[in-house]
This record gives sequence, C-alpha cells and structure tokens, in this order.
Amino acid sequence: MDRSHFGQHSSSQFNEEMESIRSHLMEMGGLVEKQVIDALQALLQADSQLADKVLETEDRVDDMEKLIDEECASVLALRQPAASDLRMVIAVTKCVSDLERIGDESAKIARMAVQLTEEGESPRGYVEVRHIGNHVRQMLRDALDAFARFDADKAVEVAAEDNEVDLEYRSAMRSLVTFMMEDPRSITRVLNIIWSLRALERIGDHSRNIAEQLIYLVKGKDVRHIPVAEIQEQVSGKS
Amino acid sequence: MDRSHFGQHSSSQFNEEMESIRSHLMEMGGLVEKQVIDALQALLQADSQLADKVLETEDRVDDMEKLIDEECASVLALRQPAASDLRMVIAVTKCVSDLERIGDESAKIARMAVQLTEEGESPRGYVEVRHIGNHVRQMLRDALDAFARFDADKAVEVAAEDNEVDLEYRSAMRSLVTFMMEDPRSITRVLNIIWSLRALERIGDHSRNIAEQLIYLVKGKDVRHIPVAEIQEQVSGKS
Repeated sequence: MDRSHFGQHSSSQFNEEMESIRSHLMEMGGLVEKQVIDALQALLQADSQLADKVLETEDRVDDMEKLIDEECASVLALRQPAASDLRMVIAVTKCVSDLERIGDESAKIARMAVQLTEEGESPRGYVEVRHIGNHVRQMLRDALDAFARFDADKAVEVAAEDNEVDLEYRSAMRSLVTFMMEDPRSITRVLNIIWSLRALERIGDHSRNIAEQLIYLVKGKDVRHIPVAEIQEQVSGKS
Repeated sequence: MDRSHFGQHSSSQFNEEMESIRSHLMEMGGLVEKQVIDALQALLQADSQLADKVLETEDRVDDMEKLIDEECASVLALRQPAASDLRMVIAVTKCVSDLERIGDESAKIARMAVQLTEEGESPRGYVEVRHIGNHVRQMLRDALDAFARFDADKAVEVAAEDNEVDLEYRSAMRSLVTFMMEDPRSITRVLNIIWSLRALERIGDHSRNIAEQLIYLVKGKDVRHIPVAEIQEQVSGKS
C-alpha cells in the first residue's frame, strides 16, 4: 500500500490527528462530568434552572460523539494505525459510547430534578443520593484522569470503587423501599429518587467501562467481565 | 506499506476473516435473542429453572464479546480494511457492546423471575410485561435480521418501533405506580415488575442502536440522535 501521497509531513500529521482524537475525548469527558455534577446539584438543591442547563448540553455531547467517531473512522481508513495507536482508536471508540450514555443518565437525573422541584422538595432519600452521587462523580473523574495520564493503576481503583457503589446502591434501595411501604403517599416522589439512584449506579458502571478501556489501551489486555483482583494481577503484570 | 507477505491467498483469507466476524456476531445475536425469550418466559411462567439457564449463558455471551472484539482488532491491525469493510468492522465493534448489554438486561429479568417465583407469583402487571416483552423481542429479531441481510429499510422500522415501545413503557409505568398506591402491600412485587419493564425498555434501546449501526454500515451515514423521520429520509437517499 502506497502512503507516499500523504507527503513528507505524513507522520507529524498523523500525530496531530491522534492528538485531536485524544483531546476531543477529554473535552467530551469534561462536558459529561459537568453534566453529572450539575444534575446532582440540581436534584439536591431543587434547582430546575440548572437542570435545564444539563438538558441543553445533551445535543453538544451527541455531536461530540459523532465527531470523535468520525475522526476515528478517518484515521483507521487513511492512516492504518498500528499497535498502541490502533488500541487508542479502538478504546476511544468504545469510550465515547460510555460517555454519551453517562450524559443520557445525567439528563434522566435532571428530569427527575425538574419533577421533584415542581412537586415541592423533601429531604428523604437525599442523603443516599448525595453520598452515592459524590462517589460516582469521583469515579468518573478518576476514570478520565486515568485516561489522560495513561494510568492503569488508577483505572484498577475505579473498577474497585464500582463494586462499593453497587453495595451502597443496593443498601439505599432497601431503605427507600421500606420508606415507601411505611408511607404510601410518598411512592411517586420516592420512585423519582430511586430512578436517580439507578442512573447514578449506571454512571458508575460506565465509568468502570472507561477505566477498563484504558487498561486495554495501556496493557493490551481485555479485562472486561473479570473480578477486580484478577484485573489487579493483569495490570501488575503477574499474569 | 507492503502486503506481499500475506501471500497469494491474502484476499481470500481476508474475506474469510470478515465472514468469521460477521457470523460470530450473528451467533452472539442468536444467543442473546434466546436469552431475552427465555428470560421473558421464565418471568411470565414463574419458571426459575429457565431463569437459571439465562444466567448460565452470561459467561458465553461475555466470551463472544471478547472474541469478536479481538477479531476486529486483528483485522484492523493486519488487513487495513477500507470502505464498507472498515465500516463493517466499526459497526460490529459497536454492536457487540449493545448485544452484551442486552444479555445483561435479560439476566436482570431472569433474576426478577427467580425472586417473583420465590415470593409466589401473581398476574398483576404481567399483561404489560407480555405485551412490551413481545414487542421488544420482535425489535431485536428485526434488528438482527436487518444486519444479516444488510436491510437498511428494516433498520428504519426498528427505530420507529423503539418510539412506540417508549410510549407503551411510560403508560405501563403509570398504571403500575397507581396499583402500588392502591395496594401498598404489593410494593416489593410490583417494583420487580417495574425493573423488568425497565430492562425491556433498555433492550429496545439497544436494538435500535444495532439498527442504527446497520444503517451506518450500508449507507455510510451516522443516524444516531436524530428523529425517525430524518433517518427515513437519509436512508431513502433524499438528503
């Protein structure tokens, strides 16, 4: 295959294209992280204006997803990246889907915030939302940090955090269900809190997916669907 | 770039590799479709043995995801596919994630089936599950059919069906919430039905994603995040 038509700057152009993909992913990550933070705050402080802001960002996130996927397809078609460059493109293609879905889940939380604000807010269940929300927010930040710094160890931590969030989520669900049974008039409102928690738990899952893609990128190992202890072993190179 | 080391059978080997990716995706699709069907039946007929079967299939689905992604990465690295072959590889990489998540959602339904069976079944809410379940099952089948036959028109139909499922889902949720309020003792059981409906709605979303990837593959157009009417226009080539 003849690459001469790329001209003498082919290699530096290629590097620029890879850098553009990477920086767009980081930009999309920042946008989505802001959505999560704002959606949580909108919910906890009954701020429907802030919730609207989250919903308005959805289109930009969707556009970023398309843009980055287009850049990846173009690099694959024209540059035939190899080794770690190829893994970067594959990992980014997977990550944009997860980021877009995190944006979706944030929008769900924002819509709950609007509803709860209209119905008059009440603090029941908010302790759990605040706690799990902060945890998940940190997971997403760590996953994005890990990606920015190619830090596989940090990515392993994110996977471990996801297990904790799942436990917290299950315990919160139990107490919310108990609360509904004790006070059936609260059912609709508590269900909105439950949906928000569910969305947060999903954001945790997607953050873990991003972390797993970073491990694939750095270590060349597919660590999906295996326990955290095994991921740890694979990353530290014992297997 | 020198491709001569692939030898004289390079092209037919390449075709074989592409065919292997395609047929593995179809195999994974069949596996996941069976999971959806079995999970629904397990729930509707309170059959916990069948539910266990769904859960046992999870590992095989996860393995298929890894295998197909590996095949795609290998083709990208060694064969530098172009044009529609490249779009095929990209589309498959996206679709395996959706299929794996459909498997996940089926497993959730199966776990609800086990719980509901233990608690003694009751038909309330099952009408909705059966109706939406059948609809979503058909969507998944159509999405896979569209993929098998490169049928972009059928893929457009799947996207349109997804909108209907969303409406049905919202209406079912309203009646289930009303039922919980009327009979608070049913809260736990109705919540399990609600989770199952939620899982079905998500399966509908993922089926739509698969259909959108097929449109990208056949038409080279990214139709994510746009209304069905616009997808229709793009597929019929009016824009």
